[in-house]
Amino acid sequence: MAVTMNQDLRRERAAASFIPELLTHILDGSPEKTRRRREIENLILNDPDFQHEDLNFLSRSQRYEVAVRKSATMVKKIREFGISDPDEIMWFKKLHMSNFPEPVGLNFSMFIPTLLNQGTTAQQEKWLLSSKGLEIIGTYTQTELGHGTHLRGLETTATYDPETQEFILNSPTVTSIKWWPGGLGKTSNHAIVLAQLYTKGKCYGLHAFIVPIREIGTHKPLPGITVGDIGPKFGYDEVDNGYLKMDHYRIPRENMLMKHAQVKPDGTYVKPMSNKLTYGTMVFIRSVLVGEAARCLAKACTIAIRYSAVRHQSEIKPGEPEPQILDFQTQQYKLFPLLATAYAFHFVGDYMKETYHRINEDIGHGDLSELPELHALSAGMKAFTSWTANAAIEACRMACGGHGYSHCSGLPNIYVTFTPTCTFEGENTVMMLQTARFLMKSFDQVHSGKLVCGMVSYLNDLQSQRIQPQQVAVWPAGVDINSPEGLTEAYKLRAARLVEMAAKNLQTEVSHRKSKEVAWNLTSVDLVRASEAHCHYVVVKLFSEQLLKIQDRSVQAVLRNLCLLYSLYGISQKAGDFLQESILTDSQITQVHQRMKELLTAIRPDAVALVDAFDFRDASLGSVLGRYDGNVYENLFEWAKTSPLNKAEVHESYYKHLKPLQSKL
Amino acid sequence: MAVTMNQDLRRERAAASFIPELLTHILDGSPEKTRRRREIENLILNDPDFQHEDLNFLSRSQRYEVAVRKSATMVKKIREFGISDPDEIMWFKKLHMSNFPEPVGLNFSMFIPTLLNQGTTAQQEKWLLSSKGLEIIGTYTQTELGHGTHLRGLETTATYDPETQEFILNSPTVTSIKWWPGGLGKTSNHAIVLAQLYTKGKCYGLHAFIVPIREIGTHKPLPGITVGDIGPKFGYDEVDNGYLKMDHYRIPRENMLMKHAQVKPDGTYVKPMSNKLTYGTMVFIRSVLVGEAARCLAKACTIAIRYSAVRHQSEIKPGEPEPQILDFQTQQYKLFPLLATAYAFHFVGDYMKETYHRINEDIGHGDLSELPELHALSAGMKAFTSWTANAAIEACRMACGGHGYSHCSGLPNIYVTFTPTCTFEGENTVMMLQTARFLMKSFDQVHSGKLVCGMVSYLNDLQSQRIQPQQVAVWPAGVDINSPEGLTEAYKLRAARLVEMAAKNLQTEVSHRKSKEVAWNLTSVDLVRASEAHCHYVVVKLFSEQLLKIQDRSVQAVLRNLCLLYSLYGISQKAGDFLQESILTDSQITQVHQRMKELLTAIRPDAVALVDAFDFRDASLGSVLGRYDGNVYENLFEWAKTSPLNKAEVHESYYKHLKPLQSKL
Repeated sequence: MAVTMNQDLRRERAAASFIPELLTHILDGSPEKTRRRREIENLILNDPDFQHEDLNFLSRSQRYEVAVRKSATMVKKIREFGISDPDEIMWFKKLHMSNFPEPVGLNFSMFIPTLLNQGTTAQQEKWLLSSKGLEIIGTYTQTELGHGTHLRGLETTATYDPETQEFILNSPTVTSIKWWPGGLGKTSNHAIVLAQLYTKGKCYGLHAFIVPIREIGTHKPLPGITVGDIGPKFGYDEVDNGYLKMDHYRIPRENMLMKHAQVKPDGTYVKPMSNKLTYGTMVFIRSVLVGEAARCLAKACTIAIRYSAVRHQSEIKPGEPEPQILDFQTQQYKLFPLLATAYAFHFVGDYMKETYHRINEDIGHGDLSELPELHALSAGMKAFTSWTANAAIEACRMACGGHGYSHCSGLPNIYVTFTPTCTFEGENTVMMLQTARFLMKSFDQVHSGKLVCGMVSYLNDLQSQRIQPQQVAVWPAGVDINSPEGLTEAYKLRAARLVEMAAKNLQTEVSHRKSKEVAWNLTSVDLVRASEAHCHYVVVKLFSEQLLKIQDRSVQAVLRNLCLLYSLYGISQKAGDFLQESILTDSQITQVHQRMKELLTAIRPDAVALVDAFDFRDASLGSVLGRYDGNVYENLFEWAKTSPLNKAEVHESYYKHLKPLQSKL
Repeated sequence: MAVTMNQDLRRERAAASFIPELLTHILDGSPEKTRRRREIENLILNDPDFQHEDLNFLSRSQRYEVAVRKSATMVKKIREFGISDPDEIMWFKKLHMSNFPEPVGLNFSMFIPTLLNQGTTAQQEKWLLSSKGLEIIGTYTQTELGHGTHLRGLETTATYDPETQEFILNSPTVTSIKWWPGGLGKTSNHAIVLAQLYTKGKCYGLHAFIVPIREIGTHKPLPGITVGDIGPKFGYDEVDNGYLKMDHYRIPRENMLMKHAQVKPDGTYVKPMSNKLTYGTMVFIRSVLVGEAARCLAKACTIAIRYSAVRHQSEIKPGEPEPQILDFQTQQYKLFPLLATAYAFHFVGDYMKETYHRINEDIGHGDLSELPELHALSAGMKAFTSWTANAAIEACRMACGGHGYSHCSGLPNIYVTFTPTCTFEGENTVMMLQTARFLMKSFDQVHSGKLVCGMVSYLNDLQSQRIQPQQVAVWPAGVDINSPEGLTEAYKLRAARLVEMAAKNLQTEVSHRKSKEVAWNLTSVDLVRASEAHCHYVVVKLFSEQLLKIQDRSVQAVLRNLCLLYSLYGISQKAGDFLQESILTDSQITQVHQRMKELLTAIRPDAVALVDAFDFRDASLGSVLGRYDGNVYENLFEWAKTSPLNKAEVHESYYKHLKPLQSKL
C-alpha cells in the first residue's frame, strides 16, 4: 500500500512522537497476541472466498444471501484452519463481515453459550457439536412484541404435560409473539425459547427450552410454528431478525435446559441452587459490549481522522494553501475527545473482561460475594459506554461533512450496526437504574455505619465529609486538574455528591408519604444521573491507572494527554456538577477550557498514528474516506460510477413519468 | 378513525387541559390558515393517485421510480387544482411524499428561485414556465468533490470566448467534479452551475450559469457532459444525488444569469450593484430550515409520545397493572424537553420567516442596515436548531426501545432525511463561526463606545457590568428562575459573558503575537460556544415573548410550562455556564432540577394533546408506532408479514449455502 500512500498521511506518520506498533501491543495485551491476531486475520485478508460485492449496492435480499454465504464459508474455514480459541474465533468473525452483522450470529453468541451454561452434559452432547458446525442453526428468543427488558412481563408459556412427558409451548396473544431474534426469520432451524414454565398448575417463571422450528432437510416451518422476518430496520439488513408464534406446540421434556432447574417426569419442579448464577453470563456479555463500544468508536475515529488529514478546505490565512481540516481547532475539538474516549473504553473493556474471568473463578470456588457489585457495574458500564459511543460515532460521521453522509464513508453502517447496543441486552436507562439500586444500597450501608468495598468505596468517606446544605467548600480545595490522579479525585467527589443527592431526594419523596416504588420513580432522573457520575468516575480511574502500567515513555506521554483530555472534556461538559459544592473553583473551570485547547494542539501531531495503532487490518474499513492509503477522490468517483442506479440500461422512469409532462417541447 | 381508537389514547385525549384545535390555529397563524391548509392536504389524502407502496420494502431503484412518478403526479395535480401560493404549494409538497424527499425537489427549491433572483426578465421568460411544469427539469450544482461550504475553493471554470460569444465550462480536476446535487444523477436535463468566471484573462469569482445537460426527448447526456448518480447514502434513497463533469463544454453567453453581474458580448465584465443582495435568499432558505427542524422534531415527538402512551411495560408498584411507559419519569425526561424544543423552534421559525419578509421589503426601499445581523442570526439559528433537532430525533427513536429501530416506527427515515440539514446550506460549525464574527464585531463596537441594536443589544450592558477576573457576583442576585422573563434574563447574561470571554481570549491570542487569523482559529472553540449561547438566548426570548400573544388561558398555561421546561432544561445541561460568575447560585441550580421534575408531572396529562395539536394529517405518519389511532401490535405484525424477505418463494440461500454444511444429518 505504501506505493500509493497519500502524501499528507505519509507526512503525518513520519512526524508521530511514538511508535504505533508499541501501542498496538498494549491494546492487544502483548506483542505475541498482536502477532497471533494478525496471523488469524491474514487468513481472511488473503482468502479470495471472503471477498464480496459492496453490500451498499445490493438489495436487502441480496445482502442477506451474501451474508449467509459468507457465514457458511466462515464455518468451513474455521474447521479447515483448526481455530478453536474463543478469542481467536472472535478475531476471525470480526473481520469476515467487516462492518456488517451475520444471520448466524446468534447461533454463536447466544445459542451455544446458553447451551453451555444451562444445558446438562447430556444436552450438550446432543446439540453442541451440530450447532458448532451449523448443522443445527440455533437462535435465542426472548423479547416479545409487547415486552423487552422487563422479563417478568413475557407471556409465552411452556406447560408441562406429564401424560406425554412433553412441554406445550404457546403464544397466547399477539403481544406474546417472539420478536427480534437474529436469524429467526429465515435461517435458523432451532431456537432457545424463554417461556413461563407451568407445571402442576403453578407458574415457576422463565425457563429456557430448545425448540425445533424448521424441518431439517426441507427447512420448512414445522406444524404449529409460524415464523418469518420482522421487516426492514435502520440497519442489520443482512440479518433476518424474526418473529415466532407457537400454537400449542409440543416438545419433549428433555428439551428444557436442566443444568440448574429441573422438571421431573411426573411434573415435580426442582428449583436451581442459586438464582444468581445467571449473573455471570450477563456480566460477560455486557463486558463484551463495552469492548464493542470501544472498537466501533475506534473505527469511526480512524475514518474521520484519516479523512481530516487528507481533506484540505477553506483557509486559516488568506493566500496560503488550504490547510488540512485537522488543523482547525473546531475539528480537533470534535474528534480528539472521541479518540480519547475510544482509548478509555478499550481499557475499561479489558478491565471488565478480566474481572469477569476472575469472578468466574471465584464462583467456581463458591464465592459469590463480588457478584452484586459486578452486576451493577457491568449494567452501568454497558449503558454508559454504549450511549457515549453511539453519539460519538455520529459525531465522527458529521465531522466528515457531506461525504460522511454517503455510504462511501462507511460511517452510516458503523452507526446503524452499533446503535442497537443501547437497547439490547438491557435497555440503557433500565441498566442505569439497576446500577443506581446498588449505589443506593451501598449508600444505606455506609449510612448505617458499615463499610463498603470495591469501586463504591469512596462512599465510605461521605460520613466524615458530609455535605451540608448552604455549606461551601467542604472538599479540600486542592484538586489538581493537571494530573490524572487529581482528576480522578474530582470525578470521585462528584460521584459521591450525586449519589448522596439522589439518596436524599429519594428519602424526601418517601417522607412525603409516597410508597417506596412511587418515590423511586419520582427520583429516577436523579438516580440515572448518579449512576452516570459513578460510571464516569470508573472510566477516568481505570484510564488513569492504565498509564502506570505503560513502559515506553513516548507511548505513555501521548496516552497521558489522551487521559487528561478525556477527563477535562467530561468536566467541561458537566461543569455544573463540579462547581456546585465547590469540587472545582470558577477559575479552575476556566483553566479546564484553556488546558483542553492546549491538549488539542499537543495531540494534533500524533492523531493519525493514534488511529493507526488501533490496527484495523481491513485497509478499506468498509470506507472510501478512511482507507489506510488515503486515496479519497479518485476512489470515490470510481465507487460512485458502479452505483446500481447508474447501471440501469435506460431511463425508464423518465420515459414513463416525466416525458409525458414535456409534450409541449 | 375514532371507531378503533386505542383506549389509552382516548383517555389521554379526554383528559387534556386545553383544546388542541386552538393551539393548532396558533401554530398555523390563524384559524383560516388551518382551514386552508387542511383543504389542500385533503386533496392529497383523498386522492388514490397519491397512495403508494411502503417505500421501506422497495429497492433503491424502485424507490426512485415511485418518487419520480409521484413528483409527476404532483405537478399535474398542482396545475389541475390551480394551487399557486408558495405556502400552499409547500403544504401540498410536504404531504405527498410523507417523510421522503423527491428527485425533482431542487427544481422547485433551488433552480426556480435562483432563476427568479438572479435571472433577467428575458431569462425568466425563457426558462421559468417550462421549469414550473417540469418540461425543463432543473437542478442546482454548487458543491464539488473537493469543496463544499468554502465557496472560494470551487474549481469549475466558465471561460468566456468572445469569438463565439460562448462560455466554456470545464471541470479541470477530479476534485472539481460537481457532487451531491439532488436530481442530477438521472432526472434533470438542466443545471444551474456555479463556476469561477474568467473573461479577458481575469477571474471574477463565482457566477451562475444555466447548463443543458441532457437532450430533451431522448434524455441522453449531451456530448461533453459526464453525469451520474453518486451512489447510496444514509438516506435520500429516492433521490438521485449526482455528479457532473464538464469537458470544455460550450453554452451561449445568454445562459449566464445576468440580473446582477454581466458579461458583455465583447467580454467586458460588469460587476453587480451590491454583493450583499444574495444575503436575502440565504436568510430565506435558512429560515425555512429552522421551520423544518421544528417540523421534523414535532413529527418524531408525535410518534414517540403516542407510542409511549400506548406501550405498557414493567411496573412501578409490584402487583399493579403495567403502567404506560409515559408514566416513567425517565421517559418524560427524555421526551418532554424535546416536545418543548419542537414548540420553541416552531416559533423561532415563524420569527425568521416574518423577519425575512420585513427585511426584504426594506431592501426594496434600499435599506440594507439590518442585513448583517440577520445574516448572522439565520446562520447561527440554522446551525443551532438543526444540531439540536438532529440529536433530539434520535433521542425520540431510542425512547421507543427496540421498535424505534425498526422502520415500522418511521423514525429512522425522519432522522436520515433530516440529518443532512446540519451539513448543507452551510456546514453548522462554519455557520456558528459566521455568527461569532458578527458577535465579535458587535463586541468591538460596544468596546469602542458605540451602541449596538437588535438581538445583540444586551452587549451594550457589558460596559457598565464589566466582569472582572476574581470578582464574584457582579450580576444582580435576583434572577427569577420561575418566570420566563427571569430565565430570559439568565440566558442573556450567559450569552454576554461567553461573548466577552471569547473576545478576551481572542485578544489574548493576538497579543501573543499571533496573526489575527491564527488567533481566530485558536479561539474558535470559544467562539462557537459564544454563538451557541447567543442563539440559545434568542430561542428562550422568542418563546417567552410568544406567550404574551396567546389569548386562551388554558393554552397559555400549557405553553408556559413548555417554555419553562425548555429554559430550565437548557440551564441544567449547561449549569456550569450559569454558575460561573454567579448568574445563578448553587441552590438555584438545585431548584432548577427540582422544578424540572415538577414540570414533567405537570405536562404529563397534556402530552398526547400537545402532539395532536401539531396536526399531522397523514394519520400514519409513515409509522406503525405513531398512528393517530394507536393500534400498534396487530398492525406491526401485519406490516412485518408483508416484508419482501418473507415473500421469497423458496429458501434458496438455505439450500445453496447452509444445507451443504448439514451433510451429516
